[in-house]
Amino acid sequence: MSVQIRRAAQADHAAIARIIVPTIRAGETYALDRDLSEGAALTYWTGADRETYVAEQEGAVRGTYYLRANQAGFGAHVANCGFMTDPAASGRGIARSMGAHALDRARACGFTAMQFNFVVSTNVRAVRLWESLGFAVVGRLPGAFRHPSLGCVDALVMFRTL
Amino acid sequence: MSVQIRRAAQADHAAIARIIVPTIRAGETYALDRDLSEGAALTYWTGADRETYVAEQEGAVRGTYYLRANQAGFGAHVANCGFMTDPAASGRGIARSMGAHALDRARACGFTAMQFNFVVSTNVRAVRLWESLGFAVVGRLPGAFRHPSLGCVDALVMFRTL
Repeated sequence: MSVQIRRAAQADHAAIARIIVPTIRAGETYALDRDLSEGAALTYWTGADRETYVAEQEGAVRGTYYLRANQAGFGAHVANCGFMTDPAASGRGIARSMGAHALDRARACGFTAMQFNFVVSTNVRAVRLWESLGFAVVGRLPGAFRHPSLGCVDALVMFRTL
Repeated sequence: MSVQIRRAAQADHAAIARIIVPTIRAGETYALDRDLSEGAALTYWTGADRETYVAEQEGAVRGTYYLRANQAGFGAHVANCGFMTDPAASGRGIARSMGAHALDRARACGFTAMQFNFVVSTNVRAVRLWESLGFAVVGRLPGAFRHPSLGCVDALVMFRTL
Protein backbone atom coordinates (compact mmCIF):
# COMPACT_ATOMS: atom_id res chain seq x y z
CA MET A 1 0.00 0.00 0.00
CA SER A 2 1.40 3.35 -0.94
CA VAL A 3 2.20 5.96 1.64
CA GLN A 4 1.70 9.69 1.03
CA ILE A 5 3.78 12.03 3.11
CA ARG A 6 3.03 15.73 3.39
CA ARG A 7 3.70 18.65 5.68
CA ALA A 8 1.33 18.63 8.67
CA ALA A 9 -1.29 21.36 8.91
CA GLN A 10 -3.25 22.61 11.90
CA ALA A 11 -6.14 20.44 10.73
CA ASP A 12 -3.95 17.35 11.26
CA HIS A 13 -3.37 17.99 14.95
CA ALA A 14 -6.18 15.72 16.12
CA ALA A 15 -4.88 12.89 13.95
CA ILE A 16 -1.31 13.50 15.16
CA ALA A 17 -2.50 13.46 18.77
CA ARG A 18 -4.22 10.11 18.19
CA ILE A 19 -0.81 8.68 17.29
CA ILE A 20 1.60 10.44 19.61
CA VAL A 21 -0.42 10.54 22.84
CA PRO A 22 -0.84 6.75 23.18
CA THR A 23 2.84 6.26 22.31
CA ILE A 24 3.86 8.77 24.99
CA ARG A 25 1.50 7.15 27.52
CA ALA A 26 2.93 3.70 26.77
CA GLY A 27 6.35 5.17 27.61
CA GLU A 28 8.33 2.39 25.99
CA THR A 29 10.15 4.23 23.24
CA TYR A 30 10.53 7.93 24.05
CA ALA A 31 12.07 9.71 27.03
CA LEU A 32 9.14 12.07 27.38
CA ASP A 33 6.97 12.74 30.39
CA ARG A 34 4.40 9.97 30.20
CA ASP A 35 1.73 12.27 31.63
CA LEU A 36 2.30 15.05 29.10
CA SER A 37 -1.04 16.67 28.23
CA GLU A 38 -2.28 16.36 24.67
CA GLY A 39 -1.66 20.07 24.20
CA ALA A 40 1.89 19.86 25.49
CA ALA A 41 2.57 16.81 23.36
CA LEU A 42 1.37 18.62 20.23
CA THR A 43 3.36 21.73 21.15
CA TYR A 44 6.45 19.56 21.41
CA TRP A 45 5.83 17.59 18.23
CA THR A 46 4.84 20.54 16.04
CA GLY A 47 7.07 23.26 17.54
CA ALA A 48 8.29 26.25 15.56
CA ASP A 49 11.85 24.87 15.63
CA ARG A 50 10.93 21.89 13.43
CA GLU A 51 9.03 20.73 10.34
CA THR A 52 6.31 18.21 11.09
CA TYR A 53 5.02 15.71 8.53
CA VAL A 54 2.19 13.21 8.40
CA ALA A 55 2.09 9.92 6.53
CA GLU A 56 -1.22 8.81 5.09
CA GLN A 57 -2.22 5.40 3.91
CA GLU A 58 -5.64 4.75 2.40
CA GLY A 59 -6.67 8.27 3.29
CA ALA A 60 -5.90 8.06 7.01
CA VAL A 61 -2.97 9.56 8.93
CA ARG A 62 -0.97 6.58 10.15
CA GLY A 63 2.35 8.13 11.06
CA THR A 64 4.05 11.41 11.82
CA TYR A 65 7.59 12.69 12.10
CA TYR A 66 9.45 15.89 12.76
CA LEU A 67 12.73 17.19 11.37
CA ARG A 68 14.87 19.80 13.10
CA ALA A 69 18.48 20.75 13.73
CA ASN A 70 19.94 18.58 16.46
CA GLN A 71 22.08 21.38 17.87
CA ALA A 72 22.27 25.12 17.43
CA GLY A 73 25.17 27.19 16.14
CA PHE A 74 28.07 25.18 14.77
CA GLY A 75 26.18 21.96 15.34
CA ALA A 76 23.18 22.95 13.21
CA HIS A 77 24.30 21.03 10.12
CA VAL A 78 23.22 17.77 11.77
CA ALA A 79 19.51 16.98 11.57
CA ASN A 80 17.41 15.19 14.15
CA CYS A 81 14.04 13.51 13.77
CA GLY A 82 11.37 11.84 15.83
CA PHE A 83 9.02 9.26 14.31
CA MET A 84 5.81 7.69 15.55
CA THR A 85 3.52 5.27 13.78
CA ASP A 86 0.01 4.18 14.64
CA PRO A 87 0.53 0.75 16.23
CA ALA A 88 -2.58 -0.48 14.42
CA ALA A 89 -0.79 0.16 11.13
CA SER A 90 2.59 -1.33 11.93
CA GLY A 91 4.28 -3.59 9.41
CA ARG A 92 2.94 -1.62 6.45
CA GLY A 93 6.07 0.33 5.58
CA ILE A 94 4.96 3.60 7.10
CA ALA A 95 8.00 4.15 9.31
CA ARG A 96 10.34 3.17 6.49
CA SER A 97 8.61 5.56 4.11
CA MET A 98 8.87 8.36 6.64
CA GLY A 99 12.54 7.59 7.26
CA ALA A 100 13.37 7.75 3.56
CA HIS A 101 11.33 10.95 3.21
CA ALA A 102 13.15 12.51 6.18
CA LEU A 103 16.55 11.73 4.68
CA ASP A 104 15.54 13.37 1.38
CA ARG A 105 14.05 16.37 3.10
CA ALA A 106 17.08 16.80 5.37
CA ARG A 107 19.37 16.78 2.32
CA ALA A 108 17.14 19.34 0.61
CA CYS A 109 17.34 21.54 3.71
CA GLY A 110 21.14 21.43 3.52
CA PHE A 111 21.78 19.15 6.48
CA THR A 112 24.87 17.01 6.00
CA ALA A 113 24.14 14.34 8.59
CA MET A 114 21.31 13.00 10.74
CA GLN A 115 21.51 11.91 14.36
CA PHE A 116 19.10 10.14 16.66
CA ASN A 117 20.06 10.88 20.25
CA PHE A 118 18.11 8.31 22.14
CA VAL A 119 16.95 5.13 20.40
CA VAL A 120 15.81 2.75 23.13
CA SER A 121 17.83 -0.41 22.57
CA THR A 122 14.85 -2.68 23.21
CA ASN A 123 13.01 -0.99 20.33
CA VAL A 124 14.59 -3.56 18.05
CA ARG A 125 12.30 -2.81 15.17
CA ALA A 126 13.43 0.82 15.13
CA VAL A 127 17.12 -0.06 15.49
CA ARG A 128 16.89 -2.47 12.55
CA LEU A 129 14.98 0.00 10.43
CA TRP A 130 17.53 2.77 10.99
CA GLU A 131 20.41 0.41 10.30
CA SER A 132 18.76 -0.64 7.06
CA LEU A 133 18.49 3.06 6.16
CA GLY A 134 22.22 3.57 6.63
CA PHE A 135 22.46 4.61 10.27
CA ALA A 136 25.20 3.26 12.51
CA VAL A 137 25.22 3.03 16.27
CA VAL A 138 27.85 5.58 17.27
CA GLY A 139 27.11 5.62 20.98
CA ARG A 140 25.59 3.49 23.71
CA LEU A 141 24.21 5.08 26.88
CA PRO A 142 24.29 2.45 29.61
CA GLY A 143 20.98 2.04 31.37
CA ALA A 144 19.86 5.49 30.26
CA PHE A 145 16.23 4.48 29.81
CA ARG A 146 14.06 3.07 32.58
CA HIS A 147 11.77 0.91 30.52
CA PRO A 148 8.37 0.65 32.23
CA SER A 149 8.39 -3.14 32.13
CA LEU A 150 12.01 -4.16 31.41
CA GLY A 151 13.86 -1.93 33.87
CA CYS A 152 16.96 0.04 32.94
CA VAL A 153 18.02 -0.58 29.36
CA ASP A 154 20.60 1.08 27.14
CA ALA A 155 19.79 3.85 24.72
CA LEU A 156 21.64 4.18 21.44
CA VAL A 157 22.97 7.18 19.56
CA MET A 158 22.57 6.57 15.82
CA PHE A 159 24.12 8.62 13.06
CA ARG A 160 24.58 8.78 9.33
CA THR A 161 25.96 11.29 6.89
CA LEU A 162 23.78 12.54 4.04
CA MET B 1 43.46 28.89 45.81
CA SER B 2 40.21 27.62 47.18
CA VAL B 3 37.04 27.67 45.13
CA GLN B 4 33.63 28.38 46.68
CA ILE B 5 30.63 27.09 44.81
CA ARG B 6 27.11 28.24 45.55
CA ARG B 7 23.71 28.41 43.89
CA ALA B 8 23.49 31.36 41.50
CA ALA B 9 21.18 34.24 42.42
CA GLN B 10 19.65 36.92 40.23
CA ALA B 11 22.42 39.25 41.43
CA ASP B 12 24.98 36.95 39.79
CA HIS B 13 23.54 37.28 36.30
CA ALA B 14 25.90 40.04 35.23
CA ALA B 15 28.89 38.02 36.40
CA ILE B 16 27.54 34.90 34.68
CA ALA B 17 27.03 36.86 31.45
CA ARG B 18 30.64 38.05 31.59
CA ILE B 19 31.71 34.41 31.45
CA ILE B 20 29.18 32.78 29.15
CA VAL B 21 28.73 35.47 26.50
CA PRO B 22 32.40 35.59 25.40
CA THR B 23 32.51 31.80 25.38
CA ILE B 24 29.40 31.65 23.20
CA ARG B 25 30.80 34.37 20.90
CA ALA B 26 34.08 32.46 20.53
CA GLY B 27 32.01 29.49 19.38
CA GLU B 28 34.73 26.92 19.93
CA THR B 29 33.22 24.72 22.60
CA TYR B 30 29.42 24.89 22.59
CA ALA B 31 26.88 24.25 19.83
CA LEU B 32 24.95 27.40 20.62
CA ASP B 33 24.02 30.25 18.32
CA ARG B 34 27.12 32.43 18.41
CA ASP B 35 24.99 35.56 18.10
CA LEU B 36 22.70 34.72 21.01
CA SER B 37 21.81 37.91 22.88
CA GLU B 38 23.00 38.29 26.45
CA GLY B 39 19.41 37.94 27.63
CA ALA B 40 18.83 34.77 25.64
CA ALA B 41 22.13 33.33 26.84
CA LEU B 42 21.17 33.97 30.47
CA THR B 43 17.69 32.55 29.90
CA TYR B 44 19.29 29.40 28.53
CA TRP B 45 21.93 29.08 31.26
CA THR B 46 19.65 29.84 34.21
CA GLY B 47 16.39 28.27 32.95
CA ALA B 48 13.70 26.95 35.27
CA ASP B 49 14.51 23.38 34.19
CA ARG B 50 17.98 23.48 35.79
CA GLU B 51 19.99 24.49 38.85
CA THR B 52 22.69 27.04 38.12
CA TYR B 53 25.80 27.47 40.22
CA VAL B 54 28.66 29.95 40.35
CA ALA B 55 32.24 29.29 41.41
CA GLU B 56 34.09 32.06 43.19
CA GLN B 57 37.78 32.43 43.73
CA GLU B 58 39.20 35.33 45.73
CA GLY B 59 35.75 36.88 45.88
CA ALA B 60 35.11 36.95 42.13
CA VAL B 61 32.86 34.70 40.05
CA ARG B 62 35.20 32.73 37.80
CA GLY B 63 33.02 29.89 36.63
CA THR B 64 29.44 28.73 36.32
CA TYR B 65 27.63 25.50 35.64
CA TYR B 66 24.13 24.15 35.37
CA LEU B 67 22.68 20.78 36.33
CA ARG B 68 19.50 19.36 34.85
CA ALA B 69 17.92 16.11 33.75
CA ASN B 70 19.26 15.09 30.34
CA GLN B 71 15.95 13.62 29.21
CA ALA B 72 12.38 13.70 30.46
CA GLY B 73 10.21 10.80 31.57
CA PHE B 74 12.02 7.49 31.83
CA GLY B 75 15.31 9.13 30.93
CA ALA B 76 15.21 11.64 33.78
CA HIS B 77 17.53 9.68 36.08
CA VAL B 78 20.51 10.77 33.99
CA ALA B 79 21.86 14.24 34.73
CA ASN B 80 23.38 16.68 32.28
CA CYS B 81 25.58 19.70 32.95
CA GLY B 82 27.18 22.59 31.14
CA PHE B 83 30.32 24.27 32.47
CA MET B 84 32.05 27.50 31.56
CA THR B 85 35.10 29.09 33.17
CA ASP B 86 36.49 32.57 32.80
CA PRO B 87 39.41 32.07 30.39
CA ALA B 88 41.43 34.56 32.46
CA ALA B 89 41.20 32.16 35.39
CA SER B 90 42.00 28.91 33.61
CA GLY B 91 44.43 26.47 35.17
CA ARG B 92 43.33 27.28 38.69
CA GLY B 93 41.14 24.28 39.37
CA ILE B 94 37.84 26.01 38.84
CA ALA B 95 36.40 23.62 36.27
CA ARG B 96 37.58 20.62 38.27
CA SER B 97 35.99 21.98 41.43
CA MET B 98 32.73 22.59 39.58
CA GLY B 99 32.83 19.08 38.10
CA ALA B 100 33.28 17.47 41.50
CA HIS B 101 30.56 19.67 42.95
CA ALA B 102 28.19 18.75 40.13
CA LEU B 103 28.75 15.03 40.70
CA ASP B 104 27.98 15.42 44.41
CA ARG B 105 24.95 17.55 43.75
CA ALA B 106 23.63 15.18 41.08
CA ARG B 107 23.92 12.26 43.53
CA ALA B 108 22.11 14.29 46.18
CA CYS B 109 19.34 15.01 43.69
CA GLY B 110 18.91 11.29 43.08
CA PHE B 111 20.44 11.10 39.62
CA THR B 112 22.17 7.79 38.99
CA ALA B 113 24.34 8.82 36.04
CA MET B 114 25.61 11.91 34.27
CA GLN B 115 25.92 12.44 30.53
CA PHE B 116 27.53 15.14 28.40
CA ASN B 117 25.94 15.08 24.97
CA PHE B 118 28.34 17.15 22.96
CA VAL B 119 31.93 17.58 24.13
CA VAL B 120 33.86 19.07 21.22
CA SER B 121 36.74 16.67 20.63
CA THR B 122 39.25 19.48 20.11
CA ASN B 123 38.45 20.78 23.59
CA VAL B 124 41.18 18.48 24.87
CA ARG B 125 41.35 20.12 28.25
CA ALA B 126 37.68 19.36 28.88
CA VAL B 127 37.92 15.79 27.61
CA ARG B 128 40.89 15.09 29.90
CA LEU B 129 39.19 16.71 32.86
CA TRP B 130 36.04 14.63 32.45
CA GLU B 131 38.04 11.46 31.99
CA SER B 132 39.94 12.21 35.19
CA LEU B 133 36.57 12.64 36.93
CA GLY B 134 35.45 9.19 35.86
CA PHE B 135 33.67 9.88 32.58
CA ALA B 136 34.13 7.59 29.59
CA VAL B 137 33.60 8.40 25.94
CA VAL B 138 30.54 6.33 25.04
CA GLY B 139 29.87 7.90 21.67
CA ARG B 140 31.60 9.78 18.89
CA LEU B 141 29.63 12.00 16.50
CA PRO B 142 31.61 12.28 13.28
CA GLY B 143 32.14 15.87 12.18
CA ALA B 144 29.19 17.02 14.24
CA PHE B 145 30.78 20.36 15.16
CA ARG B 146 31.90 22.95 12.63
CA HIS B 147 34.74 24.47 14.58
CA PRO B 148 35.15 28.14 13.56
CA SER B 149 38.84 27.71 12.78
CA LEU B 150 39.44 23.94 12.52
CA GLY B 151 36.51 22.93 10.32
CA CYS B 152 34.34 19.90 11.03
CA VAL B 153 35.51 18.01 14.09
CA ASP B 154 33.97 15.17 16.07
CA ALA B 155 31.89 15.68 19.17
CA LEU B 156 31.96 13.17 22.00
CA VAL B 157 29.24 11.75 24.21
CA MET B 158 30.65 11.22 27.70
CA PHE B 159 28.99 9.30 30.51
CA ARG B 160 29.52 8.02 34.00
CA THR B 161 27.39 6.35 36.60
CA LEU B 162 27.06 7.97 40.03
